[in-house]
Amino acid sequence: MTELRRDPITGRTVIVAPARATRPITAAARWEFQPGPCPFCPGHEDETPPPRLVRAWPAEGDVPPQRIRVVPNRYPAVESDDGLAEPPRTIELALGEEAGGSELFPRQPARGEHDVIIESDRHVGSLAALSAIEVGRVAEVYRLRLAELAAGGRWPVAVLFKNVGAAAGASLEHTHSQVLALSEVPDVLRIELAGASAYHARRGRCVYCDLAERELAAGERIVAATDEFVALAPWASRWPLEIWVWPRGHQSRYDRQTPEAAHRFGEFFQGVLARLERVLGQAGYNFFLHQAPFDSLENPHYHWHVEIIPRLTTTAGFEWGTDWFVNPLPPELAAAMLRGAGG
Amino acid sequence: MTELRRDPITGRTVIVAPARATRPITAAARWEFQPGPCPFCPGHEDETPPPRLVRAWPAEGDVPPQRIRVVPNRYPAVESDDGLAEPPRTIELALGEEAGGSELFPRQPARGEHDVIIESDRHVGSLAALSAIEVGRVAEVYRLRLAELAAGGRWPVAVLFKNVGAAAGASLEHTHSQVLALSEVPDVLRIELAGASAYHARRGRCVYCDLAERELAAGERIVAATDEFVALAPWASRWPLEIWVWPRGHQSRYDRQTPEAAHRFGEFFQGVLARLERVLGQAGYNFFLHQAPFDSLENPHYHWHVEIIPRLTTTAGFEWGTDWFVNPLPPELAAAMLRGAGG
Repeated sequence: MTELRRDPITGRTVIVAPARATRPITAAARWEFQPGPCPFCPGHEDETPPPRLVRAWPAEGDVPPQRIRVVPNRYPAVESDDGLAEPPRTIELALGEEAGGSELFPRQPARGEHDVIIESDRHVGSLAALSAIEVGRVAEVYRLRLAELAAGGRWPVAVLFKNVGAAAGASLEHTHSQVLALSEVPDVLRIELAGASAYHARRGRCVYCDLAERELAAGERIVAATDEFVALAPWASRWPLEIWVWPRGHQSRYDRQTPEAAHRFGEFFQGVLARLERVLGQAGYNFFLHQAPFDSLENPHYHWHVEIIPRLTTTAGFEWGTDWFVNPLPPELAAAMLRGAGG
Repeated sequence: MTELRRDPITGRTVIVAPARATRPITAAARWEFQPGPCPFCPGHEDETPPPRLVRAWPAEGDVPPQRIRVVPNRYPAVESDDGLAEPPRTIELALGEEAGGSELFPRQPARGEHDVIIESDRHVGSLAALSAIEVGRVAEVYRLRLAELAAGGRWPVAVLFKNVGAAAGASLEHTHSQVLALSEVPDVLRIELAGASAYHARRGRCVYCDLAERELAAGERIVAATDEFVALAPWASRWPLEIWVWPRGHQSRYDRQTPEAAHRFGEFFQGVLARLERVLGQAGYNFFLHQAPFDSLENPHYHWHVEIIPRLTTTAGFEWGTDWFVNPLPPELAAAMLRGAGG
């Protein structure tokens, strides 16, 4: 059984998923992948489960035709348990044989939905290899799938992420991202929500709105900006060339923006990733999208955003033993490098 | 300037250390290192700063002579700022130009001492390649250096760690570990201290003592044990083959055990690492030693321990975006594999 476990001391959450031990392992060196047929290329549709969602566009000017598919992950980190009529929203702890058992060994099923978004029929390694128009469509499919999960009412929260390059954890090269709906708010998002809420209680404003305003005024950590979006190297960057991206107008949930705004976000985001890859070369990176849980339509303190973390440094004993990251590249320098990398 | 920065939303701490960008970079593939002269081998003493501490033993039976040196790290993550007579123990935040500046962009100097412990004159890649007697001496030098830092009264806390293999962040192959004295308690240790303190408040006992007792009674997650020490695969292992090691008797601080007990701990620890490496092959790993801060001689709730984290899995977008780790290997299976790997 796939299950959540919590460390009894720190409360840290782990998903124990033995089924994932059987998934294909590829060499973990930069963008290198094992050669061979790709299950995400056209003609291999029978190698993925039937899609939950498909969007397709014909050729348009110099933009080739595009098909985007959302399919269930064949190696899910969580189980949807579709046989249940009602999802359990409360945490149930298994009882040990004696008092204290559940306190030292808490467990519950790891529930949710784990999908893959195949972002193009073209076998390219990242979104930066697609055109801005194509990434606009990808961003709109992100919005559609998150909106579907919200409307389904089955799960309280979802996180979207992408791994680029084997060294960043991608097991397949063909450009794709992943969406996980989860049965409870994961730690990083919970801590962000609490921090943003506390800031709002003190200042009466959204911390992301305040940050964007201050950063745009100062300029030194800005990577790119339009009237609608901002990309910046965060003050306390944990990684060299780390970038955060969000809309300048206050908005808690990505899935509640308009389709047109999602397209425009994707077009902006493509430009940010293209800058990053010009600096990174073939080094791997991850990004993840955080938005408010589905239980609030909108709130005054939280602001959806994407965090991009390049994998140029190795997380070692000091970081794992302290959660203090050592970053050799000041974000002010990172932003200047990225601004200089064309647009 | 090397400085600590804090994310204004999550409170996460980062050390911005531009000087570390100049340190030698080696290929990050398993245990592979660039060939060439080793600055930690005999005859290259002028390539490291003068040692703070040296211990040497003559040959003894089939154990070769051994020298252990503690030297300042040439690429420190923190600065000792030896010109100051008194260390600042309070957090000072730089004030921004306007109200809210320090709240959105908090900073303070990154202070402390960063030493390297060169564990042998022999050019071997890990402690498992040394004999149990030799690792006993290493464990005693760990104790000596931590006790010196405690007696110095300059820093409130220290963390010891080791990176084995380039893929785990080691930049040099020759067996060595690192000790960082810091100006404040880092996040992971702070969270452990708080969790252990809360457990003690509820139950009147040490959570590590209770865990050892329960795990030894159940047996399924035990890797190795003597009357004095226990090694187990933790319930909520974040990593395949993760191992925690601690003394069965209650003790908050590693540096306050006797020299004889430190030697015996090292001998036990060598056997645990040898088991691990027989299963891991040449995959990299880290370990870190957590003990109570220097401000308490002994307390009833915290218990020193070593956590060993093998680097078989790639931390990817999901883990970084949630802090929920996906571990494909249940700790019960990991413990069985390690028990089967000889003693």
